[in-house]
Amino acid sequence: MSLDNFFSPKSVAVLGASRNPGKPGHVIFRNFFEGDFKGKAYPVNPKAKELFGQKCYKSVEDIPGPVDLVIIVVPAPIVPLALRQCGKKKIKAAIIISAGFKEIGNVKLEEEVKSIAKKYRIRLVGTNCIGIYDPYSGVDTIFNPRYKLERPGKGEIAYISQSGAIGTVMLDWMAMKGYKISRFVSYGNETDIGADELIEYLSKDKDTKVICAYFEGMKDGRKFFEIARKLSHRKPIMVQKGGTTTAGSTAVQSHTGSLAGSAEIFSAAFRQAGIIQADDMEEMFDFARLLSTQPLPKGKRVQVITDGGGFGVMAVDGIIKNGLELARIEKKSVEGLKKKLPHYFVIKNPIDLTGNAESWHYAEAIDAAIKDPKVDMIIVIVLFQVPALTPEVTEVIIEASKRSSKPIAVVASGGRYTEVLKKSLEAGGAPCFSYPARAANAMGVLYNYTQYRRKHG
Amino acid sequence: MSLDNFFSPKSVAVLGASRNPGKPGHVIFRNFFEGDFKGKAYPVNPKAKELFGQKCYKSVEDIPGPVDLVIIVVPAPIVPLALRQCGKKKIKAAIIISAGFKEIGNVKLEEEVKSIAKKYRIRLVGTNCIGIYDPYSGVDTIFNPRYKLERPGKGEIAYISQSGAIGTVMLDWMAMKGYKISRFVSYGNETDIGADELIEYLSKDKDTKVICAYFEGMKDGRKFFEIARKLSHRKPIMVQKGGTTTAGSTAVQSHTGSLAGSAEIFSAAFRQAGIIQADDMEEMFDFARLLSTQPLPKGKRVQVITDGGGFGVMAVDGIIKNGLELARIEKKSVEGLKKKLPHYFVIKNPIDLTGNAESWHYAEAIDAAIKDPKVDMIIVIVLFQVPALTPEVTEVIIEASKRSSKPIAVVASGGRYTEVLKKSLEAGGAPCFSYPARAANAMGVLYNYTQYRRKHG
Repeated sequence: MSLDNFFSPKSVAVLGASRNPGKPGHVIFRNFFEGDFKGKAYPVNPKAKELFGQKCYKSVEDIPGPVDLVIIVVPAPIVPLALRQCGKKKIKAAIIISAGFKEIGNVKLEEEVKSIAKKYRIRLVGTNCIGIYDPYSGVDTIFNPRYKLERPGKGEIAYISQSGAIGTVMLDWMAMKGYKISRFVSYGNETDIGADELIEYLSKDKDTKVICAYFEGMKDGRKFFEIARKLSHRKPIMVQKGGTTTAGSTAVQSHTGSLAGSAEIFSAAFRQAGIIQADDMEEMFDFARLLSTQPLPKGKRVQVITDGGGFGVMAVDGIIKNGLELARIEKKSVEGLKKKLPHYFVIKNPIDLTGNAESWHYAEAIDAAIKDPKVDMIIVIVLFQVPALTPEVTEVIIEASKRSSKPIAVVASGGRYTEVLKKSLEAGGAPCFSYPARAANAMGVLYNYTQYRRKHG
Repeated sequence: MSLDNFFSPKSVAVLGASRNPGKPGHVIFRNFFEGDFKGKAYPVNPKAKELFGQKCYKSVEDIPGPVDLVIIVVPAPIVPLALRQCGKKKIKAAIIISAGFKEIGNVKLEEEVKSIAKKYRIRLVGTNCIGIYDPYSGVDTIFNPRYKLERPGKGEIAYISQSGAIGTVMLDWMAMKGYKISRFVSYGNETDIGADELIEYLSKDKDTKVICAYFEGMKDGRKFFEIARKLSHRKPIMVQKGGTTTAGSTAVQSHTGSLAGSAEIFSAAFRQAGIIQADDMEEMFDFARLLSTQPLPKGKRVQVITDGGGFGVMAVDGIIKNGLELARIEKKSVEGLKKKLPHYFVIKNPIDLTGNAESWHYAEAIDAAIKDPKVDMIIVIVLFQVPALTPEVTEVIIEASKRSSKPIAVVASGGRYTEVLKKSLEAGGAPCFSYPARAANAMGVLYNYTQYRRKHG
């Protein structure tokens, strides 16, 4: 069976839909009822008559029409009963949000749930998870209310997370930054569906260009790495792994009840499978944003354009540290720029437009870098705070980014004014990084992935 | 001479005050005229009659009263003339914003400026710099308008930067985050005053508790390290160094015209002098915020309190990686908490309050950790997004942080709702970090600094 029922169901039922706004079952039902979901949503709660003016069902079996997906938010001891009722109703997909299974040592209950699912052929996401957020279909089982935790818009980055908290907190952060996603899955205890199967599904998903994963351990490492090796040259897969120390992996056990394994073994396996490992969550999405929006580079020569000397220095450091090279633009390009730009601008690498930079200076410098045959990639540092620079520079960069066949990474740092303009760059498809080192790291990953793909593609 | 004229002048003159809002000289004069500066501010511009309704002087010598500090924003070739006039006017302190000296190879002009300053005993900040921002006195020579680049409020972290762009961009970021500073100096080419002298001055500054520095190279390394070694056990000094690769240090030359030197040599010298080195700018301020607000710990046992399991795992990883230990709270504390808190909470290390956390759960857990003799430091992870948690938890944390004699680091991640609450924690004196790893790194630095001070203090 495909996992389509999870991501694009026509009808859902929420078991444990609650009238209390502080309860997960309340928020989840409201997500479907008030959100972007276009299908039917049924509340199930034996103690309530109605919810949001909708008739409340005593049991899932009382629902008149078919149900493609059920979301289970009842206390753990009641989950087996609820799941049996789903089986009798011929429901084929269930997300079990409820906690209280193997992560607290309750292996017996976990096994019972597993065998009921097997008997009735119900596929499970969970137990002990947050579930799914899909901006395309409007499926949203995140039990944090939207005013506390915003949801990102429709994009091309799929993101799966073993940890619900890390997963959802990063979604909230992404929404603030204007980053977008295709699908999100928090899969918790992997009672049935695990990271391996999700990655396989997402590798065929038309809305997904890159796959990001956070996990601490996995139930079937061998299978995961086999699948990843087969797919990674088609779609980039990047991971961030928690529980890398011994004490950390002990903490993992009381979290998702899985074994974390040694950091070195995992890193080696990631490399072999062509998986890109990130040091932290923000870095993972740095990589993902560059790889999902930019073309693959022809070589490793990077040209830096900046309006702040110190940021240029940091970019050069980052380029070298990542094994990339500084581009040396042709004499023709240098002379062309010297004719057009103020005489005190430094036309080397970095090209330093100084604190007097204006939008048209950026237009000229980026255009020269795009056209110069000795440049493979471009880092554009734009400190919006300099006096003569107007917000129009974002349009200059977006236009250049659209027509360029070379990857362009933008760097901008600062406060609120800058954050507004960075969001408009993101919206225009120009990925923007907080510091030169972050852009250079992402460029390094893009280049290495290009090499990997050439070898294995 | 003390550097007081730079930080708390009674009167300033801006040479090159301009009517054009896109010009640095315009913004700088406006900073003094419209900002928090309480003294007299004179515009000097031979081409203008008045500026903001103020009489404009043709030369600094025409100003009737005394001038404690002059800010020079005229083109580089005119700087010698302007400086001579300052000398005749008996001005003792000058900030030279103007660029076009040794950083572009114009060593002769730089030397000329230096000898004029020496002759007239004028102390210089600059050339090629942004100058000073002092939230206490209102001195603000940052030429980026405030709507583009916000200024942080009054705090206890001094921050000096060789790079003007990096310096000011970080101020903008700090203002957005609600972080505060005591003094900021961008000192550029170090034509006269360098990092060594600034650090010496700031070490005696009553408003400054910790000193942060960004630099690429320095004019007198030996002197800098001698001074730092003498002072670092009294006030923590932290640095971030740019130009750490060979190519990066070449880029430094066309930036501030100084030699960068090898990264390894610098790191060794930093360690010997008791200077704390940060990997990136945000990390430097992470360290500074913890060290400026929290007491020194008695030992290295850290208790983690969380409402998200995955974040707990990350904190444990961070604690171990930093050479710290997981605290093992006493049986008495465990039993006390078990009696009060819901039975499914995990009372170990981390204490996991789960996604059902409420403010009073945090109050109980933090109180137990403060009182437990086996805990030296506390990391409180608070994901504000969970359904039942109200913003009141910030007051719980601030109150605990105030009475605790153990250092407390808070971790909160997410989007806009979370950012608002993080700012209120900062305002309440509880330093807040974006990720568990960042809090753990800062805790590690705090612990190591405590050890260093015990040994050398």
